[in-house]
Amino acid sequence: MLEGGAEDELTLRRNSAMFDGLSLRPRVLSDIAKTDMRTRILGEPVNMPIMLSPTGGCGLWHPDGEIAVSRAAAAAGIFSALSTAATKTLEGVAQAAPGPRMFQLYAFKDGALNSELIRQSRSNGYKAICLTVDAIAGAGNREREVRNGLTPGATMPIQSMVAFARHPKWVFNTIRYKATNLGMIEELMPGGRSSLKEIREFLNNNLANTLTWEDAARLRQEWGGPFVIKGIMTAEDAIRAVEIGAQGIVVSNHGGRQADGVSSTIEALPGIAEAVGDQLEIYLDGGVRRGSHVLKALALGAKAVMVGRPYIYGLTVGGQQGVGHVIEIFRREIALCMGMIGVRSLDELGPVSICKAS
Amino acid sequence: MLEGGAEDELTLRRNSAMFDGLSLRPRVLSDIAKTDMRTRILGEPVNMPIMLSPTGGCGLWHPDGEIAVSRAAAAAGIFSALSTAATKTLEGVAQAAPGPRMFQLYAFKDGALNSELIRQSRSNGYKAICLTVDAIAGAGNREREVRNGLTPGATMPIQSMVAFARHPKWVFNTIRYKATNLGMIEELMPGGRSSLKEIREFLNNNLANTLTWEDAARLRQEWGGPFVIKGIMTAEDAIRAVEIGAQGIVVSNHGGRQADGVSSTIEALPGIAEAVGDQLEIYLDGGVRRGSHVLKALALGAKAVMVGRPYIYGLTVGGQQGVGHVIEIFRREIALCMGMIGVRSLDELGPVSICKAS
Amino acid sequence: MLEGGAEDELTLRRNSAMFDGLSLRPRVLSDIAKTDMRTRILGEPVNMPIMLSPTGGCGLWHPDGEIAVSRAAAAAGIFSALSTAATKTLEGVAQAAPGPRMFQLYAFKDGALNSELIRQSRSNGYKAICLTVDAIAGAGNREREVRNGLTPGATMPIQSMVAFARHPKWVFNTIRYKATNLGMIEELMPGGRSSLKEIREFLNNNLANTLTWEDAARLRQEWGGPFVIKGIMTAEDAIRAVEIGAQGIVVSNHGGRQADGVSSTIEALPGIAEAVGDQLEIYLDGGVRRGSHVLKALALGAKAVMVGRPYIYGLTVGGQQGVGHVIEIFRREIALCMGMIGVRSLDELGPVSICKAS
Amino acid sequence: MLEGGAEDELTLRRNSAMFDGLSLRPRVLSDIAKTDMRTRILGEPVNMPIMLSPTGGCGLWHPDGEIAVSRAAAAAGIFSALSTAATKTLEGVAQAAPGPRMFQLYAFKDGALNSELIRQSRSNGYKAICLTVDAIAGAGNREREVRNGLTPGATMPIQSMVAFARHPKWVFNTIRYKATNLGMIEELMPGGRSSLKEIREFLNNNLANTLTWEDAARLRQEWGGPFVIKGIMTAEDAIRAVEIGAQGIVVSNHGGRQADGVSSTIEALPGIAEAVGDQLEIYLDGGVRRGSHVLKALALGAKAVMVGRPYIYGLTVGGQQGVGHVIEIFRREIALCMGMIGVRSLDELGPVSICKAS
Repeated sequence: MLEGGAEDELTLRRNSAMFDGLSLRPRVLSDIAKTDMRTRILGEPVNMPIMLSPTGGCGLWHPDGEIAVSRAAAAAGIFSALSTAATKTLEGVAQAAPGPRMFQLYAFKDGALNSELIRQSRSNGYKAICLTVDAIAGAGNREREVRNGLTPGATMPIQSMVAFARHPKWVFNTIRYKATNLGMIEELMPGGRSSLKEIREFLNNNLANTLTWEDAARLRQEWGGPFVIKGIMTAEDAIRAVEIGAQGIVVSNHGGRQADGVSSTIEALPGIAEAVGDQLEIYLDGGVRRGSHVLKALALGAKAVMVGRPYIYGLTVGGQQGVGHVIEIFRREIALCMGMIGVRSLDELGPVSICKAS
Repeated sequence: MLEGGAEDELTLRRNSAMFDGLSLRPRVLSDIAKTDMRTRILGEPVNMPIMLSPTGGCGLWHPDGEIAVSRAAAAAGIFSALSTAATKTLEGVAQAAPGPRMFQLYAFKDGALNSELIRQSRSNGYKAICLTVDAIAGAGNREREVRNGLTPGATMPIQSMVAFARHPKWVFNTIRYKATNLGMIEELMPGGRSSLKEIREFLNNNLANTLTWEDAARLRQEWGGPFVIKGIMTAEDAIRAVEIGAQGIVVSNHGGRQADGVSSTIEALPGIAEAVGDQLEIYLDGGVRRGSHVLKALALGAKAVMVGRPYIYGLTVGGQQGVGHVIEIFRREIALCMGMIGVRSLDELGPVSICKAS
Repeated sequence: MLEGGAEDELTLRRNSAMFDGLSLRPRVLSDIAKTDMRTRILGEPVNMPIMLSPTGGCGLWHPDGEIAVSRAAAAAGIFSALSTAATKTLEGVAQAAPGPRMFQLYAFKDGALNSELIRQSRSNGYKAICLTVDAIAGAGNREREVRNGLTPGATMPIQSMVAFARHPKWVFNTIRYKATNLGMIEELMPGGRSSLKEIREFLNNNLANTLTWEDAARLRQEWGGPFVIKGIMTAEDAIRAVEIGAQGIVVSNHGGRQADGVSSTIEALPGIAEAVGDQLEIYLDGGVRRGSHVLKALALGAKAVMVGRPYIYGLTVGGQQGVGHVIEIFRREIALCMGMIGVRSLDELGPVSICKAS
Repeated sequence: MLEGGAEDELTLRRNSAMFDGLSLRPRVLSDIAKTDMRTRILGEPVNMPIMLSPTGGCGLWHPDGEIAVSRAAAAAGIFSALSTAATKTLEGVAQAAPGPRMFQLYAFKDGALNSELIRQSRSNGYKAICLTVDAIAGAGNREREVRNGLTPGATMPIQSMVAFARHPKWVFNTIRYKATNLGMIEELMPGGRSSLKEIREFLNNNLANTLTWEDAARLRQEWGGPFVIKGIMTAEDAIRAVEIGAQGIVVSNHGGRQADGVSSTIEALPGIAEAVGDQLEIYLDGGVRRGSHVLKALALGAKAVMVGRPYIYGLTVGGQQGVGHVIEIFRREIALCMGMIGVRSLDELGPVSICKAS
């Protein structure tokens, strides 16, 4: 479920593999005693050019779920992004983790639900709304999950998932809303619990697959604050994002879990950066596994990267501490790689820092 | 026999693999609530941009053979193409399946046989004749079949084939004709049956390997209706097809079963589309295994694709129902992929929908 | 020994693999009932665009050695080339096989030996001298042979070699000459036999590694007849070959057994053909394993190809009959492939017949 | 520890693999009886275009360590380079081996240590100082070593290392200096011994990671003799090296052991040679395993190559004799390859000697 992507997993594999086709150009003798990887994201000072991707259902991997994730990010001084399909509430995460946070929004057909989520984001101090636009057509065709028996409706084979299903907090933000507002709590969550099947069906049935750029513009206005669009893969759409006033975009193919056969994000990045590079912030998501990957993405125009699966490994193994350890590995690798390629601060990275491998 | 191709199977593998070298460019926020994959083929409205390739000897895989295939296509509202080497008669298929059908013609030395097949196509309501031109030199050098013991004359090792060999209906259209017309029934089909060896020898000995564009033009005239040429791999020949008045061509290398070492069809498609794209309809055949493959082919200029091996798998497992299931898998994948790349109707696909993977 | 090449066997592998990177462009409907693969080599009519490469020590594989090879070639109406290091004499082969033959000459320091070999070639009706120029620096660094125990001086582990070593005819042309002329027969061939170690040492010590284009020109003049230079890999050297009056060149890297890390011959061919294509005949040697390979080489400018290892397999298994069977396999594949790509005669092949695979 | 590189070992693999993507263009008939691989390095006549890379801790592999290495180089008439982290002293090596030697300098924060090492280099007859600039940020992230248990502080699992740890001579040049000068001998080297952990920590803590081009210029002036900078990967830095008066640069990525994801050295070479080719000598280091690799590097602009791991294999197996054997293998391969590509002296090599494999 975590490892897999859609169909033949071409895009999943390309996301990481395409980093290998790019070579860093190391410079020497530039006094690298003090390398500094601090930057600003949407005006907010952060310690590293890394954000934790919004990931649905973190409670599947560890009972502390998104609380652990956000706390680890806050402790490291980096952004985390809370998913609409999180297993912890916006309030809960905000109270537990004081660091910079985005709320990732799946837009719903039910405008009142969108407004409610935006209202909660505002009242709980989320710095930005991150609207995900690449999962609107429904979940990707993830055949590995089917082969693994993780079909909608199947009982979860993983021990921690079974345990967690008995936990009263395993309630997605949106389900809680629907249940509360519509008196559906018994129907949707018998015994206060919900199943992955119900979550997925709820999302598939209720996501606003009619969503347009005009709708996105209205959501941005309603929110008022920094607005990020996640799932942009073309220069044309990046330009549209600028036009509706977004402050950031995430170049993302949903980690290869939606459309298979689309390009890797690192391949898509340069064209996008060329088209809109200085008009909004560009974040790259997908396949980032190494400090050198982060620097390659920044050299090609990204302001920061988002990482997903890596921190889930840490979460599963050790909760907040595990997530923190993964962040620390990235920090060390970035620092060492900066020193080794002679880059003292991130703004020294640019197209000249990289060349295509022959 | 079904899996294999000719010699080193380079072309067989490239047919599918070359789709992976093309990346779709997904667009977002374009209101994909209603995606519509309907199109017209030779003026005929169809529900999907997929046709079932003509495949010889479907009775080898399931006793219902081409009847099952055509019925599944008709039920799905798509074209099927009946092979000259079908194990069911033109009449039988026409009566069983009311949907849009082509008849695939191998031109024979014996002009009377060609005329008879054209006559039957007309009287049985076939919409088009699809003249296959890439198997005229004889069957390809399919060494895998030789290694498997499927040499001409060998007894068939597959249980269903043995069973089917006892079935009185295992009579190819052309053999039936020859037998009927020439009183050869005893010689060719002792006991009303025939063997694969006899079929192949009959085709090798009787196909018109002298066939020229002038002959094709005459066949088209004799037929009068929509005329499709299958097996075109170059822009030069596509232009010739236009010149003799063909309404469609199938870019095909016979699924990698004829000449090994020719390019994949998806590689050949763009040059052909550029040369003749709006003068006739172009269909792509070979290696199509995913909804995304279909969309890639259409982005590069195809009007529709033909699929072969996939539906034979379905046929073998479940007859008409199996074929229908394969078609339904394609339908779901195409629909989902359209939504995920932001394409609401097929005419939105074009060169801008795709880029070469780096 | 037969399978291997030099060092990392890069060139060995590339010779065959690079054919796969070229795609034939099949034409259709061109009346391929009569395909004709006859051509002329050095003015001599031959039945196929294939020659049997000169291969040293054929007696290692079958007691009939070069007699079997030449007879099979003659029976098929194609050229064979007898090696200087053959285990049969020039006379013996000439008497046994009346077909078109070249004599492959390694130039020796001892000019009298060269003259003697040229004289014998003339008196025994060899049509051409083929001067090999890519093995002058000594045998390549064939580590696979070392690993296999086939070091100079080692006893031969192969049964047939042991048996053959007892055979009085296992005497290379040049050793026989040296022995006869210099009274060295007891030293070189105690008991009338010789070992691979002695052969290799003899060649390494006696080949004219000072050989220049001027020397080649003199050999050509001394010979007077058609003169072919084998081992050309650059346009520059092809032009030199034209300048000294050669009628043919063999684009060859000695089957990847000499310098490892040089390009494949099919990669080298187009540049050479462009430089000198109509001033002499170009033959391609190296990696030819399929009829389609032959057609690809001809499309890129070769007049014919040489094949080596394939016929040795046939020789080992079945002597003359085995070699003939290999030739027949090539004949069938060429004929079928010609029909399938719509080429009726070899002169229809050209750059337009081929494209680079993407 | 010897085999591995940093992180995913991309750069490690590319160093060797990228040689395979280059093809030599063999010329023929150029009288290759006398091939001559002698050249001059920094004015010093040497017998081969190969130098032995500076490698730290040779005593880990054989008790004779750098003495054996330098003696083998001297016997072969080629340069060796003694590492700052050598297990033998500058004096000891100088007395044992009279041949051409460089001293490889890691610049330390403590200027007196640098001066001491330069002074010793001068008084012991080292021809050049080779300043390594690609390991200043600390040791690379060598995960294979971590997985192997070779973490700092771990006991060494290799028998010879255990044995050697008891040997009083296992004292790095720099540790000896610190100990002697600062009275730290008991702290650093209890019992006269040191551990790999202490060595690495000492280097990590004491290397001048503030080093700039100005510092390098000052070191060069202090030294006065031929000055080489090792670890240059860009044309920009090569130009800087010229500007500060260096006589040579080593295009090196530290054998893929520092920054992973940088290009191979053979890929970086042509751009560097084009920028500064005739203003200083360029040596290539990384992945050289064959005589043909040496010739490829020279064809692309290198004056010589450095080899590292290969001679350590020889050292481990057979001390001086083992190193000598590895040098001899290179000598044979270079000589044979020169003959086989028709190059009589190294100055005949140039861009025309090579082409990119397709």
